[in-house]
Amino acid sequence: MSPLPALAYARTHQKRFIAELKDFVRFPTISAQPRHAGEIRACAAWLANQLRRAGLERVKVVPTGGHPLVYGAWRNAPDRPAVLIYGHYDVQPADPLSAWRFPPFEPTIVGDNLYGRGACDDKGQLFAHVKALESYLHTMRALPVNVKCLFEGEEEIGSANLLPFIGRHKREFQADAAVMSDTRILGPDRPALNYAERGALVLELEVRGPQEDLHSGNFGGAVHNPLQALCEIVAKLHDANGRIAIPGVYDSVRDWSPRERVYMKRTGPSDAQILRDARTKSGWGESGHTLYERITLRPALTVNGISGGYQGPGAKGVIPARAVAKLSFRLVPDQDPAEIDQLFREHIAKLTPMDVRSTVRTLSAAKPALVDPNHPAMSAAAFAYLKGFGAPPVFLRSGGTIPVVNTFQTVLGAPTVLMGFALPDDGMHAPNEKFHLPNFSKGIATCIWFLAAIASRIKSRKRVEPEFVAMEQGV
Amino acid sequence: MSPLPALAYARTHQKRFIAELKDFVRFPTISAQPRHAGEIRACAAWLANQLRRAGLERVKVVPTGGHPLVYGAWRNAPDRPAVLIYGHYDVQPADPLSAWRFPPFEPTIVGDNLYGRGACDDKGQLFAHVKALESYLHTMRALPVNVKCLFEGEEEIGSANLLPFIGRHKREFQADAAVMSDTRILGPDRPALNYAERGALVLELEVRGPQEDLHSGNFGGAVHNPLQALCEIVAKLHDANGRIAIPGVYDSVRDWSPRERVYMKRTGPSDAQILRDARTKSGWGESGHTLYERITLRPALTVNGISGGYQGPGAKGVIPARAVAKLSFRLVPDQDPAEIDQLFREHIAKLTPMDVRSTVRTLSAAKPALVDPNHPAMSAAAFAYLKGFGAPPVFLRSGGTIPVVNTFQTVLGAPTVLMGFALPDDGMHAPNEKFHLPNFSKGIATCIWFLAAIASRIKSRKRVEPEFVAMEQGV
Repeated sequence: MSPLPALAYARTHQKRFIAELKDFVRFPTISAQPRHAGEIRACAAWLANQLRRAGLERVKVVPTGGHPLVYGAWRNAPDRPAVLIYGHYDVQPADPLSAWRFPPFEPTIVGDNLYGRGACDDKGQLFAHVKALESYLHTMRALPVNVKCLFEGEEEIGSANLLPFIGRHKREFQADAAVMSDTRILGPDRPALNYAERGALVLELEVRGPQEDLHSGNFGGAVHNPLQALCEIVAKLHDANGRIAIPGVYDSVRDWSPRERVYMKRTGPSDAQILRDARTKSGWGESGHTLYERITLRPALTVNGISGGYQGPGAKGVIPARAVAKLSFRLVPDQDPAEIDQLFREHIAKLTPMDVRSTVRTLSAAKPALVDPNHPAMSAAAFAYLKGFGAPPVFLRSGGTIPVVNTFQTVLGAPTVLMGFALPDDGMHAPNEKFHLPNFSKGIATCIWFLAAIASRIKSRKRVEPEFVAMEQGV
Repeated sequence: MSPLPALAYARTHQKRFIAELKDFVRFPTISAQPRHAGEIRACAAWLANQLRRAGLERVKVVPTGGHPLVYGAWRNAPDRPAVLIYGHYDVQPADPLSAWRFPPFEPTIVGDNLYGRGACDDKGQLFAHVKALESYLHTMRALPVNVKCLFEGEEEIGSANLLPFIGRHKREFQADAAVMSDTRILGPDRPALNYAERGALVLELEVRGPQEDLHSGNFGGAVHNPLQALCEIVAKLHDANGRIAIPGVYDSVRDWSPRERVYMKRTGPSDAQILRDARTKSGWGESGHTLYERITLRPALTVNGISGGYQGPGAKGVIPARAVAKLSFRLVPDQDPAEIDQLFREHIAKLTPMDVRSTVRTLSAAKPALVDPNHPAMSAAAFAYLKGFGAPPVFLRSGGTIPVVNTFQTVLGAPTVLMGFALPDDGMHAPNEKFHLPNFSKGIATCIWFLAAIASRIKSRKRVEPEFVAMEQGV
């Protein structure tokens, strides 16, 4: 099936696609904040309607214990492979609001960029697939492969409902490969295929002292301050060399071959590039590793937030009764979140001073994931990038976490193609998140080519071998 | 002038006094939060009206660069001493709101207690003086002494406008003694006169790293986290023995005589009592000192609040761009806030890791204060307590800070009688702050007796010598 009519359709309707993407971004689908539940449901209904209008069948909004899933399929080519297209329509919280140039849920175009929370992560990237499907179905009345779309509303809070849902519906989601676009490429003309994701273990550590906040004049110097104790605990979680100072955490970290590290050095971002992307001057962390290795091959433990005591303007003379830190590990092969969770809890118990109490709560856990770069779906994606972006992709590891990647692999046996369209400076999770609109167009074209390419590749089992593959048997 | 008619008037009008106190508490006069400026002005007008209705003259609301002062006087006894009555109508912030049983600005009476932010600190205690003045002026049309009332709206944020105002109006505020009720006694029948207050130095420490929040998956392990750096800095501000670990901070701390410490041990609260008041089980801090000494003779450094990164429900995978700690020192004789400020800044500069930047802001500073317990105004207060509470007071040191006490002493040459009516469990600065209403009545009676007693004592220079005085020449 020629992708050319679909590509022409996508070009013709580009303006409408962008207008619809703005509608999509307008929903404040912050999954972490319960008050947005209604708007999340409304967004799911809107997205389901988009799938229907694209021409998908069996479209439904599937309720879960949390935010709903959106499902749609086209399964009218029984002799062809099946592709599972995954994405998420929920977004990160938008705070600190004061740092935004435009209101986060009033999408605003400036030059080539569409600003708004979720514009890039993951609404814009997800929408490229929806528009690719529409472009095929409105021109050819068929797709080159069978497709199952599965879009969730809880990715940013750990996909707690999706993962068991997939387990319960293994047969329905059976696929030869999964594809998702929720990752970064290196630059506007430098596409990248991710073949590794870090796992995550998200925790909350609460330290409690006195029953209620105390007057720091009346009691300061005589009662331990849970906020100070929390700082003392957090300060002990890393050693002076930037290594996580929790016994056992590195025991199961895989050592990678020198060849892998040489390949990474050649194809991956340099230290300077990573610092530029982070808009900061100096790196930090475990010595003996490049910054790229630190964010992909090595585990990390990050304090994502601390709150305790008075936080308003001016001052308040209190010893707070409690303090909370939000912490997250990024995990690498072969670390197991459950084991790390246990090591963390044991260590926190040891670090907690006698005169305060600590509680650890596990918010979510996801295993690290690796995708075989030799899989034909990966070479289909490489081909699609070449057609869509005019350049072959580099194969990269990502430091981020997409919990479903591991689930697709272990439960469905489907490798996930991480075919991202986000730029390093798109500000995923940050204020002023944006999506580079030329990448939206190129992304749609890439999705169209991908469906065409995977049809032939998986049937023929023909493999394109990029230079990378020859040396990456160990991956 | 006999205080008996005034005492009778106060008993008769007790119910109305309580109703008016509830009106007073209803104003959300949180001086730290600019959005309450209008309500603070309204409260000042209300309080001025109370003074007018009590029978004071020259009543006015005095604008300042911040929240206004309320002034009123009665100066019709040129041959008698003058007393400066000080109090503050601003209150601490009410958060955490969720910890309150009743809304903080909807005063609620349960049993003997009036619940509400400011019920005790300092509206209820201040109001006892206003009602004592009303009781005299409505029955005798005169006061036993000249009186100048000065009530401010910025005590909880460091009295930044009051202190220079007093300096500019030395003559107008000339007084033989000042009196204020903003301190705690030991129990319902155990009054206490404070003869020492700690000073305070209130600071904000900001640590900045990357320009904007970063995705902790994409950058975790490669970029230093300002929130982690802040924890590392804060953790280093105390040593393992609970001492402040900033070089030089103890250099000017006065050593007190064994006699003073023996007296304190006999009259002051025990460790067990302080822990009961704090509703916590174990003490903390500098070894070699009782808890009472730690909160009065020894300096303290308290983290009052930390805020950084994501603080909402659930989680957000960020490396925050900045983190802020609010910290305050409590200072003792002979520490100078300006010197400690300098030592703090130098030490923070040393502790700040190279890959983040730190900024220290000084929010307010107040010197420690000592009052001569031999002063006749102190013995007048001791007598007043005996009449009002039926028990003589103990002489105590307080760990808190009232910036004006030092100013009254050094600028006006007036000792300040710290004649408090608050109970240890009244929760000053805490959620569920309350005022024990029997102490409101006893407080009014004590204020009435105080005015009567100081008239005769200061004229005659007669001194009552409580047992304490004999041994406290060193104070």
